[in-house]
Amino acid sequence: MGKIEAQTVKGFRDLMPVQAKRKSEIISRIKAVYEEFGFQPVETPALEYLEILLDEYGEENTKQIFKLKSPENQDVALRFDLTVPLARLVAQYYDLPKPFKRYQVASVWRADKPDPGRFREFTQFDVDVVGTSSQLAEAEVISAVVEALRRIDIGDFVVKVNSRRVLNAVINYAGIPYDQGKDVFRVLDKLNKIGLENVKLELSRGRYDVSGDFIPGLGLNSQSISRIEDYLSLPKGERKTVISELASLLGDQSAVELVRLDEFLTVLGMTSEIVSYDPTIARGLDYYTGPVFEVVLKDKTQFGSIAGGGRYDGLVKRFTDVEVPAVGFSIGVDRLLSAIESKLSADSVVDVVVTVMDRDRLPDYLTIANHLRKSGQFKVDLYLGEEKSLRKQLQYADRVGAKIALIAGSDEFQKGTVTIKDLRKGKAESKEISDREGWLKKTREIQVEVPRNQAIPTILTILKTNG
Amino acid sequence: MGKIEAQTVKGFRDLMPVQAKRKSEIISRIKAVYEEFGFQPVETPALEYLEILLDEYGEENTKQIFKLKSPENQDVALRFDLTVPLARLVAQYYDLPKPFKRYQVASVWRADKPDPGRFREFTQFDVDVVGTSSQLAEAEVISAVVEALRRIDIGDFVVKVNSRRVLNAVINYAGIPYDQGKDVFRVLDKLNKIGLENVKLELSRGRYDVSGDFIPGLGLNSQSISRIEDYLSLPKGERKTVISELASLLGDQSAVELVRLDEFLTVLGMTSEIVSYDPTIARGLDYYTGPVFEVVLKDKTQFGSIAGGGRYDGLVKRFTDVEVPAVGFSIGVDRLLSAIESKLSADSVVDVVVTVMDRDRLPDYLTIANHLRKSGQFKVDLYLGEEKSLRKQLQYADRVGAKIALIAGSDEFQKGTVTIKDLRKGKAESKEISDREGWLKKTREIQVEVPRNQAIPTILTILKTNG
Repeated sequence: MGKIEAQTVKGFRDLMPVQAKRKSEIISRIKAVYEEFGFQPVETPALEYLEILLDEYGEENTKQIFKLKSPENQDVALRFDLTVPLARLVAQYYDLPKPFKRYQVASVWRADKPDPGRFREFTQFDVDVVGTSSQLAEAEVISAVVEALRRIDIGDFVVKVNSRRVLNAVINYAGIPYDQGKDVFRVLDKLNKIGLENVKLELSRGRYDVSGDFIPGLGLNSQSISRIEDYLSLPKGERKTVISELASLLGDQSAVELVRLDEFLTVLGMTSEIVSYDPTIARGLDYYTGPVFEVVLKDKTQFGSIAGGGRYDGLVKRFTDVEVPAVGFSIGVDRLLSAIESKLSADSVVDVVVTVMDRDRLPDYLTIANHLRKSGQFKVDLYLGEEKSLRKQLQYADRVGAKIALIAGSDEFQKGTVTIKDLRKGKAESKEISDREGWLKKTREIQVEVPRNQAIPTILTILKTNG
Repeated sequence: MGKIEAQTVKGFRDLMPVQAKRKSEIISRIKAVYEEFGFQPVETPALEYLEILLDEYGEENTKQIFKLKSPENQDVALRFDLTVPLARLVAQYYDLPKPFKRYQVASVWRADKPDPGRFREFTQFDVDVVGTSSQLAEAEVISAVVEALRRIDIGDFVVKVNSRRVLNAVINYAGIPYDQGKDVFRVLDKLNKIGLENVKLELSRGRYDVSGDFIPGLGLNSQSISRIEDYLSLPKGERKTVISELASLLGDQSAVELVRLDEFLTVLGMTSEIVSYDPTIARGLDYYTGPVFEVVLKDKTQFGSIAGGGRYDGLVKRFTDVEVPAVGFSIGVDRLLSAIESKLSADSVVDVVVTVMDRDRLPDYLTIANHLRKSGQFKVDLYLGEEKSLRKQLQYADRVGAKIALIAGSDEFQKGTVTIKDLRKGKAESKEISDREGWLKKTREIQVEVPRNQAIPTILTILKTNG
């Protein structure tokens, strides 16, 4: 039989220890913030009935859904986000105390074309408030996300805010049929990338991009385009000013919710540096009905939006006759992980490797490792391999990122001692040593032989001094 | 359009906040122990190429696999355990430092017939050591699992140990063809449930079960059955004694690994109460090659095995020409969750609910909530709903399990004060109050009006005294 090739499915990946540790650290920091804000965890299954995930026209929409059959031969699918399953859950457990504030962190799956940094399985960390149309809820989810991103120390970011109601009013103001709105929003979304002139070309007759490909235009008339240009030419800068100009331009009530949101955000100390109005933000998902949000990193725009959300007042209604307003925000944990890579320390989880010098004494090494672990003070790895040489075992200790090696040969066992070697100091100093004498001297400094019952305090001291 | 029914797929379920919190607590305690033992996290994808999950004959084996198509129209499937993906990972990243000690906690999927308490998506928490045939590795994974189960306080449990090598030697000793082994093990597995006489019937001509259904027998001859009976009649009790009887019965080297394992376990203080030899343990999965383990709860045998594992030296070889010995142990988190339900506290994540009395002052309530959160000392839920009555908001606070309510109306705002209400004390004492006067008196004890800048110390005091 030919060997089976060991490979991950296209668009999927493994996270090795350093990344897995970073991811776990990101998640636990976000989780702590969301709990401080009073959100409670729920878990929904990976699979849902397909009809639950399709849009209101029973179509796949923009999401590429992984479909399969249940054992009962029903159409089921892997969830593509955590918001639709939440809407299903709220309809199913209708007597939940409301407002229901939940967080969930879990994988979602999309059968998109994979790109570097774009995977078909990724982790979302969502917060939502279901059962209130109060704008306090918007302020709270934005505030929770801002605090979470600060807590993981991701660098400067900005929360861009817009509103579907405003965008619909713009479409109306520009005399464009409602159905064409989605196409217009998709073009506006490119403004920061391609500039106003190209946006205008895509709204009218189309244009050639840098590669020479023709991008067909939407064929809007010049009056419509000029009105969209009015909208895009609103002053940048202070949130309050932009929103007030917006309200006078559109002459309707669509900006009211942004005015109120601005007031709450201002109370929370969120300046226009942190939360800014952006006329181009629309969000891809069809279910949004009110304010929409998107977070980008100021110095790392190449990562795209690292979080997004908005108000979706109609989603629960698909399952029940009652209107259940809701608002949520989702952080893309994998994008954060890529963006943060260099910043977040992925410290070893191993403090001490207990090496095995004398294979007849395996029970003694077990006892030593067990004793260190029982102290509850360190992470202890007993060398479980079959290499007999100390050098190779120290290489192993190095590869797992251990800080200290504990060494005991027959000599030490006879005397009732152990040798404790400071691996970090050893590494730092070995660079400065050129001769054998220097090496011997340094060796004495980076390792110390102590009575077995002194092992724990000795290790503690080394970890503290060099830590 | 008809409404879509809000329901989970058959065999799948939601975890609501209390259970989700318990599960998260179980996972974080196990994780802490595994890190103390020097295991490092990895994450593998939910989907693998189907051929990777099939057994060496390209068959599905006993696992019911959820299959689907990748966007490239290849056969892929949801993982049914975390061990096969680990073997794939080790073959794919062959230069990993070895022994490679990893942990992973994640969902797995099986298209089994769902039962009460048996779901098609469940969470496994695995530890494995890959790249060593040392029996220290067996001792370490058992020791890590024992410590993890102690840490979550699951009650009395026993780790049952056997060995595939011993079982194969028993088959050989009984003169049974190797191919029939799996069927024999499946019958032995029922010993504790159906007793020796029924086991013997199933090994020979078959039997009628209590419902009157006929269970066909394996048709073994009486000499084979009598030799299996010899094996099953080994003395119970002290691990050392059983294993030594076993070695003399089988007269071969198959028990050597159990002798060595016993020695290590004894050093670690694991008596036969905690780790015992059980002749019937075989484990369902085909890939085991050496010692096998299974954990059952002493007082809750109805939960079946809550953890299982063993040595699987051939699994990585399916992907590569090199033999990579390995051993692992998997905890079934959902079974633990069911078993532990009543024991593990699922304390509220909410300390304080800030109620909203005067809707014109929403920014002030936001400021108060924000101020409490900034202290970093409590979990604070600002009431985001639209109910105006205090009674209804306090009911909400009750339902989310909050300990304290903060109340401020126009009165308090004018005086610069807030009222802090101790909800737990209130609940306890309201049972003892029968008249209005008593109620008024108690009210004064369970709530206190303090200057706004005294809110934090007041809340801290209440949380400490009452909690």
